[in-house]
Amino acid sequence: MKKLINDPRDAVRESLAGFAAAHADVLRVCFDPVYVVRADAPIAGKVGVISGGGSGHEPMHGGFVGQGMLDAACPGQVFTSPTPDQMEAATCAVDGGAGVLHIVKNYTGDIMNFEMAAELCQARGIEVQAVIVNDDVAVQDSLYTAGRRGVGTTVLAEKICGAAAGRGYDRGRVAALGRKVNANGRSMGMALTPCIVPAAGKPSFVLGEDEIEMGIGIHGEPGRERLPLPPARELTAHMTEAILADLPFRAGDRVIAMLNGMGGTPLMELYLVYGELERILHARQIPVARRLVGNYITSLEMAGCSITLLKADEELLSLWDDPVLTPALRWGI
Amino acid sequence: MKKLINDPRDAVRESLAGFAAAHADVLRVCFDPVYVVRADAPIAGKVGVISGGGSGHEPMHGGFVGQGMLDAACPGQVFTSPTPDQMEAATCAVDGGAGVLHIVKNYTGDIMNFEMAAELCQARGIEVQAVIVNDDVAVQDSLYTAGRRGVGTTVLAEKICGAAAGRGYDRGRVAALGRKVNANGRSMGMALTPCIVPAAGKPSFVLGEDEIEMGIGIHGEPGRERLPLPPARELTAHMTEAILADLPFRAGDRVIAMLNGMGGTPLMELYLVYGELERILHARQIPVARRLVGNYITSLEMAGCSITLLKADEELLSLWDDPVLTPALRWGI
Repeated sequence: MKKLINDPRDAVRESLAGFAAAHADVLRVCFDPVYVVRADAPIAGKVGVISGGGSGHEPMHGGFVGQGMLDAACPGQVFTSPTPDQMEAATCAVDGGAGVLHIVKNYTGDIMNFEMAAELCQARGIEVQAVIVNDDVAVQDSLYTAGRRGVGTTVLAEKICGAAAGRGYDRGRVAALGRKVNANGRSMGMALTPCIVPAAGKPSFVLGEDEIEMGIGIHGEPGRERLPLPPARELTAHMTEAILADLPFRAGDRVIAMLNGMGGTPLMELYLVYGELERILHARQIPVARRLVGNYITSLEMAGCSITLLKADEELLSLWDDPVLTPALRWGI
Repeated sequence: MKKLINDPRDAVRESLAGFAAAHADVLRVCFDPVYVVRADAPIAGKVGVISGGGSGHEPMHGGFVGQGMLDAACPGQVFTSPTPDQMEAATCAVDGGAGVLHIVKNYTGDIMNFEMAAELCQARGIEVQAVIVNDDVAVQDSLYTAGRRGVGTTVLAEKICGAAAGRGYDRGRVAALGRKVNANGRSMGMALTPCIVPAAGKPSFVLGEDEIEMGIGIHGEPGRERLPLPPARELTAHMTEAILADLPFRAGDRVIAMLNGMGGTPLMELYLVYGELERILHARQIPVARRLVGNYITSLEMAGCSITLLKADEELLSLWDDPVLTPALRWGI
């Protein structure tokens, strides 16, 4: 294992220390228990929006903390759910009297711990509501999940719910928007290489010389199939068709498209795949209204990519366009 | 070789097509000859600022085209200089009557081709001036370079010269600022893994299981030494001390710091190294006035990082803070 770390046991904490130093203008990091929080939290009268999950998916979620997106994020150990005490402390830290929304990716540990945290907070008199993201079309049930896994749509839900909370919408309305994003968002990913969890020291799976895993999860969970690496054109068509057929997306549907890198794939390849994606959508008469290309929800140094499409009406597009100022997404400010 | 491409011969062109589709609000890509140009170029009365170099270093340079930074960028084939006709066409496209500045990294091919392009443009009546960036402290002379290589400081020079041109400074003053940035900027990089040029299909060098290359160039050119991977704390100290001793940077000097990923290293590790860097600078009483952490000047999927420090006075900091709107750097707009 070759990684730029000191002791694997300290990697998450030391990375967060560097993250805090780099973005002190936007956020701060609390270390006992561990959570990332907007520098100006809590904001009186605003619904707090928080998320969390295992580390190793950076910039998600800490990189989305800031004005117009998340109020706080709870990072667990690498690929491991954060604990209820982290979520409870983060929820208390961002409650401005209007309650808090938990955006939770559908992994059994995350769901269980966020539910426990919600109960603890409700006992303290903080109103908490949860939105579950389960957008991965690749497989039903998985290594850490009953039902579908939560992946790329989480990023879009965090942006849109954050914007809604920033406009002063009440908790019910922000939660309804989160559910709307999840209902209209679909994703699928693939990997060229595995990644190594620092504490494990070796890859969690192995791929052959010319083999890919189609439909992989963000922790390396098995996908639909292993196959020889096809040209980018076929690969993109394969993923896009699976996504389009699932909702289904129809001619005339406008979408927010995210072409996401898994961490180890260079931007040159991501843009090439994005070009293929736009070509396919254009041929299907599905206009791309907004887009993101880059590393947003990653799996450490895994090479590969994922595609997320969100069918977006005027309401979602308008919230998407609201200003945002976080380490990883920034516009209009 | 596992890459998300179709035919290696088309990879640069197809990637640029996706890049153009993703960022049509900011820029457009011309394909014959190939260059990336601001959507609103030329801007009457403003000095044009352009750069260029081999592809495979994305987001540099195309990702820095836009308001407040570059007017155009010329991408060559992977790790190969662009040609004079590309540079000539880009220079003509951005000349708004106040002349054009070429920001050139110190590689023999780049220097030669930019010089030839400058002569062609001058023959057409366009005033052209060049700034050479040669900030890499690792080695004197190299595989493609006489003298020092041009690396991370290029990003900072493009931001600061772009801001100066945006303020309406004349060509001489913008060029002088570029030289000032180069005179005060120093960098050093290291690699954990090699990368594969698509047309070659195999790594250009090999590293042992636990071995790193300290002082590597952005095309995999040899550095100072190969050594066993040290903990991140020692590794960061090694690179930082080499940089600090070179200028030299002294207690009280304020710096713009860039902790740059080579492409294949996850953000989690980059932030960890950034934390170590800030700790070292703090102990040396060198305040970090501004910072960038992420992938800015990469080597395809190479794992590793580089550190750039720029001694910055009020003038440079003020230009740094000017608004910028490009695919890869964005603030204040």
